[in-house]
Amino acid sequence: MTWDLRVCFVGDSFVAGVGDPEHLGWPGRLCAASERAGLPVTRYVLGVRRQTTAEVAARWAAECRPRLAGGDWKPRVVLSTGVNDTTEVDGAPRLDPHESVAALAGMLTGAAAAGWPVLVVGPPAVADDAQNERIADLDDRFARTCAGHGMPYVPVVAALAADPTWRDEVAAGDGAHPGAAGYALLADLVRPSWERWVPAGP
Amino acid sequence: MTWDLRVCFVGDSFVAGVGDPEHLGWPGRLCAASERAGLPVTRYVLGVRRQTTAEVAARWAAECRPRLAGGDWKPRVVLSTGVNDTTEVDGAPRLDPHESVAALAGMLTGAAAAGWPVLVVGPPAVADDAQNERIADLDDRFARTCAGHGMPYVPVVAALAADPTWRDEVAAGDGAHPGAAGYALLADLVRPSWERWVPAGP
Repeated sequence: MTWDLRVCFVGDSFVAGVGDPEHLGWPGRLCAASERAGLPVTRYVLGVRRQTTAEVAARWAAECRPRLAGGDWKPRVVLSTGVNDTTEVDGAPRLDPHESVAALAGMLTGAAAAGWPVLVVGPPAVADDAQNERIADLDDRFARTCAGHGMPYVPVVAALAADPTWRDEVAAGDGAHPGAAGYALLADLVRPSWERWVPAGP
Repeated sequence: MTWDLRVCFVGDSFVAGVGDPEHLGWPGRLCAASERAGLPVTRYVLGVRRQTTAEVAARWAAECRPRLAGGDWKPRVVLSTGVNDTTEVDGAPRLDPHESVAALAGMLTGAAAAGWPVLVVGPPAVADDAQNERIADLDDRFARTCAGHGMPYVPVVAALAADPTWRDEVAAGDGAHPGAAGYALLADLVRPSWERWVPAGP
């Protein structure tokens, strides 16, 4: 088989690259680096603003199917959700952590059934320290969920919450999304796992 | 209302930016230029390789709805399909031109009903001159369809077929898709219509 890698990046506004004036986001930077290393990628970006993990779980398969199914190529899914789950509305998170985990687990099971290897990237940090604690808790749960399914997981919230570039760009933006430098940082955090994961599988 | 523009770019592999090592494609270059001009854009790219206009018509609404509906923002759709319709299989095009037009007209009607202004970008050129003639014929039909619906249309096939940069990159690539310079050219062709179209409407 010739090299034909097709990757759906599924998730929320961070996956969509909201706030990046260069319009690459972290998936674009990751794939451009892959191209420079001689590994072309067809990149489908399926991030939707404001969506919780449950909302992503409701649409991801219908959107990935026409992009990944039925061809002689390497189908892949990179999944990143969770920040919106932890946003509090009337004193409660938009999605209970158990529901977040159930939604993630459902996607992992569905991807395995479809024959699509998955790389999960954890939820990043925002400007609000209390929300970052909830994100860190969800990050732990997601890491364990992925381990239980034998899928690779890339935690990023601790590194980003401690990074001055990320913090400054998020604070200067809308309180959630970074700019170009922050997305470059996030791409750098994901790259080692991506490079181990891409060549494997069908 | 604060400025909050959300655009779904719907179509085929050219919309997805296949072949661009910089991973911007023409929608990314168009939106990055818009940001430099002080108009941020949330960009959702919904191009799928190999899809005909009929295949795009079968999924576009379900994919645009969670991205555009129900919020206090400017919802927009940029639509570009048609090259795959003109690919011949066993001596006949994959989609009859009347079916291409019907699929496009259906999307224009649906978008108007949803309250989403549409900008249609015509199908670009490939390396095969006979196919480029079929694309030029479809381009005429699409232009008339859009005029009939009062929607703006940007023809690009004639300019691209005559452009040495486009021709060279497509020939050096897979015979259909350009590289970074070709996508920059295509973005430049679309930009004047985009700049007239973006500020209007809800």
